[in-house]
Amino acid sequence: MTSADASARGFEAAEFGRRLGRAQTVMKQHKFDALLCTTPANIRYFTGFDTQFWESPTRPWFVIVPLAGDPVAIIPEVGASVMARTWVKDIRTWPAPRPADDGTTLLAAALSGVSRRFGRIGPELGREMSLRMPVTQFLELRSLVRSELADGSPCLWEIRMVKTEAEIERIRRICRIAGDAYEALPGRIHIGDTERDACRRLRADLVERGADAMPYVAGVSGPGGVPQIISAPNDRRLEDGDLLFIDTGSTCDGYFCDFDRNYAVGEISSAVKRAQQVVWDATEAGIKAARPGAIAEDLWRSMAGVLSAGGSRGNNVGRLGHGLGLQLTEPPSNMPGDRTVLQAGMVLTIEPGMEYAPGKMIVHEEDVVITSDGCELLTRRAPRELWTIR
Amino acid sequence: MTSADASARGFEAAEFGRRLGRAQTVMKQHKFDALLCTTPANIRYFTGFDTQFWESPTRPWFVIVPLAGDPVAIIPEVGASVMARTWVKDIRTWPAPRPADDGTTLLAAALSGVSRRFGRIGPELGREMSLRMPVTQFLELRSLVRSELADGSPCLWEIRMVKTEAEIERIRRICRIAGDAYEALPGRIHIGDTERDACRRLRADLVERGADAMPYVAGVSGPGGVPQIISAPNDRRLEDGDLLFIDTGSTCDGYFCDFDRNYAVGEISSAVKRAQQVVWDATEAGIKAARPGAIAEDLWRSMAGVLSAGGSRGNNVGRLGHGLGLQLTEPPSNMPGDRTVLQAGMVLTIEPGMEYAPGKMIVHEEDVVITSDGCELLTRRAPRELWTIR
Repeated sequence: MTSADASARGFEAAEFGRRLGRAQTVMKQHKFDALLCTTPANIRYFTGFDTQFWESPTRPWFVIVPLAGDPVAIIPEVGASVMARTWVKDIRTWPAPRPADDGTTLLAAALSGVSRRFGRIGPELGREMSLRMPVTQFLELRSLVRSELADGSPCLWEIRMVKTEAEIERIRRICRIAGDAYEALPGRIHIGDTERDACRRLRADLVERGADAMPYVAGVSGPGGVPQIISAPNDRRLEDGDLLFIDTGSTCDGYFCDFDRNYAVGEISSAVKRAQQVVWDATEAGIKAARPGAIAEDLWRSMAGVLSAGGSRGNNVGRLGHGLGLQLTEPPSNMPGDRTVLQAGMVLTIEPGMEYAPGKMIVHEEDVVITSDGCELLTRRAPRELWTIR
Repeated sequence: MTSADASARGFEAAEFGRRLGRAQTVMKQHKFDALLCTTPANIRYFTGFDTQFWESPTRPWFVIVPLAGDPVAIIPEVGASVMARTWVKDIRTWPAPRPADDGTTLLAAALSGVSRRFGRIGPELGREMSLRMPVTQFLELRSLVRSELADGSPCLWEIRMVKTEAEIERIRRICRIAGDAYEALPGRIHIGDTERDACRRLRADLVERGADAMPYVAGVSGPGGVPQIISAPNDRRLEDGDLLFIDTGSTCDGYFCDFDRNYAVGEISSAVKRAQQVVWDATEAGIKAARPGAIAEDLWRSMAGVLSAGGSRGNNVGRLGHGLGLQLTEPPSNMPGDRTVLQAGMVLTIEPGMEYAPGKMIVHEEDVVITSDGCELLTRRAPRELWTIR
């Protein structure tokens, strides 16, 4: 395990200082005196706090990011010594759980102490964010704080959407690990194994190769294609002529890869092969279209054109890729109506898919980072001819 | 992997029918016309829907559990064919993502169609629950629905707190898998390995033994004890005299185990050995106190007495165990003030811990299910003498 261990985890304080500086510039444009973070991804983005304790829904956690000055962590006592290892200096705690007042008054007092310039504080109230605290507690907090609690999510996404070099390096690392594991899989499973066998072997290999966690693994198989791409694997056995679809969002140092691979099981029909090539070509078109100044909708259009010409009956995913980072999916969405302008540093999935016959879908996915004049592939490109399981 | 594969996943429709029947009885007592579920655990509890797609925060999902009749799923198109494999028959979809109306009007119409008896609908607004949809969307929904949207979380916890035989069987299964992996660990790591090495080997072994996922792994080491019990492992190397603490919430068929193990690294001091025995004895006391009719506070008192007599300086966890099931932690809390009456079928962790010197904490944890006349250990009891890593 030496090579995986050699890759350091965590970021320098200077990295968080740069993130904060950029955030404060964006916050000023959005007229916020502070952002209020409760979710794992936002708290980790600003502090580097690394735990899976979020799986316990019992205690809320809060980080205030002010327009001037450093972040303030208001957290349960159980987390104090871990937070003290981060760059955050102002750490305030309460003895949680304390159902009658799980941090509410402590948080309200801290928010009341924030310098007032705009009279607006931004919790995660909107797009692609769910506040990680009870709604009843939020409504109580709102009644205790003089400032307006307005939706901070557009501001937060604008901040997080453009990645730093250090963030991109983590995504590149996990993309390499997952790419190696995907490529090795045909040597580890055989016709007659179940979907669950396939995903278990991939998971074990991901761990051995240095993935920190595998929060997302979907595994689906079917004769000549799959009806959907999100379910956990089940006990269906792989048969000659199947397509096996596996998708993983694994993480390294908190950052996700998100890309899938398709495998031919034995001999697949010529119809599947044709559909495979159409989707592969659509991916090429998406990668070519990914450049600064383009909008997310342009990526969709470039792929949709190839899919449509190739006989697509549509698909049920609703878009052809999305942002990626501390979460498996982030804004923007490669779909009609998303006019987000691509900038260097944005990390996106290029994810065309098509149903070529009823219930038979093929979906490809690669990860790219926008550069100054185009994009860089973070994943090792899937081959045009499917890998085969025998 | 044959033995792991032999364990079937998923539940029969009759199991969900029984859950629904019990839920409707409790809902009537709480005066709800329906419960509204948005979170992975609640949706899985009522439908059996199995995916890790929840990692994508982009799309909200909804399940309505009415006072009479069967659940209604209102979900993004991407999930329709997976939901169709469950026992749920009424599945309504919209083409998500659709930022301007991501299911809001469809959900509002469905809620307006619920039979009105009490005029109250219960979303997950309170204790140990965070609504999985943007707050702004929830507030919009509230303005569209004639019924009162009142906190459904006490009702939901009352329903979920008592487990069925089938649920308990899943928890027993994952407790056995994790127990085997913990016991094998001293043969797989050595002095000089890092915390991360230890956790990686445990993770790989958990996968091989049949765990479906490992959402929670904490790994902490320190000379003679640990300052906290929640952080991800880091690059600290294990040294003679350390205590190594590992805690996992791994899952089988959606259900969690949650228990830790402590390891002596080389020769530990007599002070650590004494503290270890105090906490082991406190665990025994907690297990003895776990019986129907006792309250959660009684469990705390039985353990706290032993810890206090053994020289405890307290600890930062805030309680001495909690409920367990589809989530890593669930109500009740073994702590002063929690007067939840224990009933047969409740699954709890018995989790005493103490700081015996500044920054040196030892925490034990076992999982039990309350029976008709006491409790059954779901974990194989940790030995009184620590396992040793050499």
